[in-house]
This record gives sequence, structure tokens and C-alpha cells, in this order.
Amino acid sequence: MSTSSAAQQPSPVLFFQTINAHQRTEALKAAIELEVFTAIGEGNATAAEIAKRCQASEKGIRVLCDYLTIMEMLTKQGDRYALTLDSSVFLDKRSPAYLGSATEFLCSPMLTQGFRQMTEAVRKGGTAIDDEGTIGPDHPIWVKFARGMAGLMSMPAQLMAKLVDPNADRKLKILDIAAGHGLFGIAFATQNKQVEVTALDWKAVLEVAKDNAEKAGVAERYSTIEGSAFDVEFGSGYDLVLVTNFLHHFDPPTCEKLLKKVHAALADGGRAVTLEFVPNDDRVTPPEVAGFSLVMLVGTPSGDAYTFRELEQMFANAGFSGSTLHELPPTFQQVVISEK
Amino acid sequence: MSTSSAAQQPSPVLFFQTINAHQRTEALKAAIELEVFTAIGEGNATAAEIAKRCQASEKGIRVLCDYLTIMEMLTKQGDRYALTLDSSVFLDKRSPAYLGSATEFLCSPMLTQGFRQMTEAVRKGGTAIDDEGTIGPDHPIWVKFARGMAGLMSMPAQLMAKLVDPNADRKLKILDIAAGHGLFGIAFATQNKQVEVTALDWKAVLEVAKDNAEKAGVAERYSTIEGSAFDVEFGSGYDLVLVTNFLHHFDPPTCEKLLKKVHAALADGGRAVTLEFVPNDDRVTPPEVAGFSLVMLVGTPSGDAYTFRELEQMFANAGFSGSTLHELPPTFQQVVISEK
Repeated sequence: MSTSSAAQQPSPVLFFQTINAHQRTEALKAAIELEVFTAIGEGNATAAEIAKRCQASEKGIRVLCDYLTIMEMLTKQGDRYALTLDSSVFLDKRSPAYLGSATEFLCSPMLTQGFRQMTEAVRKGGTAIDDEGTIGPDHPIWVKFARGMAGLMSMPAQLMAKLVDPNADRKLKILDIAAGHGLFGIAFATQNKQVEVTALDWKAVLEVAKDNAEKAGVAERYSTIEGSAFDVEFGSGYDLVLVTNFLHHFDPPTCEKLLKKVHAALADGGRAVTLEFVPNDDRVTPPEVAGFSLVMLVGTPSGDAYTFRELEQMFANAGFSGSTLHELPPTFQQVVISEK
Repeated sequence: MSTSSAAQQPSPVLFFQTINAHQRTEALKAAIELEVFTAIGEGNATAAEIAKRCQASEKGIRVLCDYLTIMEMLTKQGDRYALTLDSSVFLDKRSPAYLGSATEFLCSPMLTQGFRQMTEAVRKGGTAIDDEGTIGPDHPIWVKFARGMAGLMSMPAQLMAKLVDPNADRKLKILDIAAGHGLFGIAFATQNKQVEVTALDWKAVLEVAKDNAEKAGVAERYSTIEGSAFDVEFGSGYDLVLVTNFLHHFDPPTCEKLLKKVHAALADGGRAVTLEFVPNDDRVTPPEVAGFSLVMLVGTPSGDAYTFRELEQMFANAGFSGSTLHELPPTFQQVVISEK
């Protein structure tokens, strides 16, 4: 996003780009729903050809594809549209890295409603949707999450497994808290035949994780615990407890309560492995990570994107001896490894 | 907006920026509603100070101001926030160039609802909201438009008056079609004491225009015609007919029908002065102008952003002898002057 703030003359460009930014979201959603990128990937190039394939009007497709060209998600030569590299990899349904299904979660009414009530959330300091936002018991959004975000999480899961278990040559008993799609635990089990995973989540969500374990061929080393991580028994003697994209939903005292349970469930020498959006101490860099704080403000009662300093303190208060921060490039997220 | 499309490696960054772009709109709206920019302009710098002034929670304000910093609408040093040049000029309520009131129109449910039904609009080739979208008779959105967009239109109106009547030294009888806030006609009347303006719009909208004419001190040279530009009598002998931000709501045959009426209402040697978003023939540049086509797709049955070639043809079909295209810097819009 270009800005004129550094220039000498004031400009309303950033105001207009921002106040109209919702149009970009809706255009991308519509294009994914209509399978415009897939249609172009299949070889349809003119508005007339794409319209026929997408069962839409030629004018509507022309206007939408022009807008996608302006957004640099398509290119246009004469009256022929083509995919960019990113669009062909991430937005054509036939691509293994297709991200389109993530929109069902990322644009679910639950999340967008929270954003539409942001003024009230800022006044309150937490979600204005209802008492618990997305962290209510058995909230159906997590099934959408598990189904929609799996494609996106496959690569980070493999990167994390390589970071934490680089030699993949010894027995590991792993607890995967709020497992969702299950891909983090499954990545460890896939690269190391001596790994046994216990996945914990709501019952409906675990069905997705079990399907994924089956598909990955690790079902016989995959078991589950149904319920809330705050209520159920974890068992004990785990070498690793995975806490992926979970702590940001809660305030620090609640996180510490959970981390004490994690600490107790670990074997001596065991490690908690946390995947999070960890902003720098300034809380405004890096942008993709720091901006996640707002998602938690509008969607949860008291969640946040915590700095490493804050996470380190929570783990220390829960009894861990030390924590280290690791980047997980090319993802935006960070891994915190904490020793019992 | 940065994009990785040109790079060697595919990246999902643009996908995430776009699918989450609605968050930017909501954050700006919330900040305007809460008067965050005004609070900072008044000297409140920390989240605690701003929260107190805005009657909001400190956490909510901290998260929102961090997000505004990421969006480059604020700066942050330590825990102190400050306005950028653009924010101080356009987003502090105390500034004469304040744009915050435009959000009532730009983010009205009528317009955003159209965007949320974009898939259906692309299928149909026109708005999915109802039969007529925003162009239905007496649609209340135009009062919001007239009230909210006046601040924004003051500068373009003055630029247009200087372009069209540079010497301001002769009697001009002007018809201002779909006058809205009235500022275009009023700008001509303000710079030239021999100008008489007749403003045409829905009755409720004309109340706003008359207020503005009163404030500008030109009320005694300002008269009105209530109703639809397609139905009412224009009168005759006009030197100028202003057609500002109007043609884009309609299809070319409807535009031509209107332009024939305009042609008939002009005196010999008279000119039609059209303000429009006029994209280049490629329909994807310049971005701010070309993107307006999508706003018309989702909000009107058959509107569009027309190229100069298309506008020129409409005016020729309506009997005009010739049209010329003029930029109106620093605005994004263009002026087409057509001779009877």
C-alpha cells in the first residue's frame, strides 16, 4: 500500500484506498466463488469465454477481471486475461497449494461480524459479538477452520516438525492441543515412525483431524481426547506438547493456567512447542504479525498477539526453565520452544 | 500494495492482504467513529490518554492504534502515537479538509450490501440488491451523499469552475443536473457574479444544496427543479449544463436519452460539462478510476465507468458537435466538455 505521508503535500489517497479496501475482499471472494481463476487456468481468456465457463454475465466478468487486474491478481493483454504466478499457484482449484477453501474460515460471518462491530470492541477491550466470541464451547467455526485451513498449514507443519525433531530418530510421545485439522501432530508422525500423537479438540473438529491422519497413513499412531483443553485430563509423560495458534485467544492468566497443565503433562526434559503470531516489542512490526492483535480484539473476550517477552514470562510463571524464539520462514509465524 | 507476482517464488502474501482487506476498512471506520485521530490531534498521545478522551478501553485503543500505525495512518514512538500529515489534514475533525463524514456515504449499508452480493451481481451483470439499486426514485442514500461528500467535492468543484469559466467575466445560465450537495454549480456562482444556477435533484437532496448555496452567499442566484432528470422539464437557453458523477449510473442508451435532453436545453454555443471516472481504453488504468466500474456493477442495474471513446460516441449520438477530455489534478476524475 503506497502512502503519501512522507511526501510534502497531503493526499487523501490512503483514506480512499482504506475506506474502500473492503471492495478488494469482496472481489476476491466473488472470484473464488465463481471459479474465475480456475476458468482462466483452464485456458479461457476473454470475458466471453470466462463468463461461459463460470455461468456469469460477460459484463460482470469483464468488470470483475479488470478489477482483479488492477489488484495484480490477473494480467490483461488486449481483451485477454491471464493468471499471475501467485494466482496460478494459490487460486486455481486444480493446484495442490489452492488457498480458496481458506476463505470459508477467513470470511466466515462469525469473523467478519466481529470486525463490523469494531467500535464497540474497542470501547469494551474485547469482542462485541457475545460473551465468548469464537472461544465458546464447541463453536462450529473450528470445524470450518479445520477443513478450510488444512491446505495452508501443511507447509508450516512440516517446517515445525523439521525444526523440533530434526533427526527424527527417536521415540516421541506428542500431545497436540487444539489440534484442529491435526496437521502439526501429523507432520511429526509422518517424518518419524516412532512418533505417537494424541490430538485434543472439540469432538466435531477431531473428525477432521482423524480423517487427515488416515490420509497421511498414521492413523494407528494417532489417538484423540475430546473436549476443552482447560477441562480434560491430558495424561502424562509427553516428550512434546504442541500449542499451535491457541494462546492468542486468551489473557495471560488463562494462558498460564493452561501452561501449568502442559508443564505437568510433560516428561522430564520434555518441551512445549508453541506456534504464534509474535510481534516485536514495538507491537507494530512485522506488519502481518502485529496486525493479528486486532483479529483477537474483535473476535475474543481478552485474546492478543503476545510479544516473546510476554510469552517467555507466561512460560516462566508456569514453571518452564527457559524459552527460545524461532522464525519459521517463509511463514509469518514464530515458534517458541520451552523446556520443562 | 506490494505484490510478489514479479518475483521468482510464489507467495500467498497478496492473497492474505486481499482477503483480510476488509479489516482495514473497519479499523478506519471505528477510528473515525471513536474520534481517535481528533483525540491525538488534540494532544493525547498514549493509549491511556486517547482511551480516556474517546471513552474506550485502553487495550482496545492500543490494539486499534497499533493497527493504524501498521496502516501508516499514525506513527508510534515508544508508547506515544502521533498523526501523519495526511491524518492531521483529512481525519482530525477540527481540520477544514476533514473527510470523516464521507464515510457515512462510502460505507452506507446500501453500498456495502451491494459489495457483499458481488457474486450474484457478476452473474447478473448488474446490482443484486433490488431492481434499481441506488438509482431508485428518491433513494435516501443521495441525501447522505449530499451531506457527507460536500467537504470532499469543494476542491474539485472549484477546479472545474476555473477550467470551464477561466475569465469569469460574462453572464452564464447554468443547469446543474443531479446537483447533490450543489457544490459544482455553487463554485461557478461564487467565482462569477453573473452566473445563475438552476439545480436539479430529488426534493430532499435539494434542501442540502439550498443550504450550501445560502452559506456560499449565492442563494439569490440559485433556483431548483425537483424530480428525476429523465422526467422533468429542464427549461432552455442554458450556457452550461453540468452532468457531474451521473452518467456512470446508466447504460449508454439511457445516457444518450438524457444527453439529447441536455442538448435541447442548451443555447447555441452552449456546452455540457461532464465529470466522470474515465478509464483508459484498457479499462485497468489508472487504477483509482478504472476500479470504479466495480462500484457501479454492484450498485446499479447497468452503470459503468465509460472510456472517453464511449462518452464521445454518446455525446455525438445525442447531437453534440465534439467533446474534449480534461484532467482535473490532483483529483482522480476527468472532465469532458462537449459543444452543442
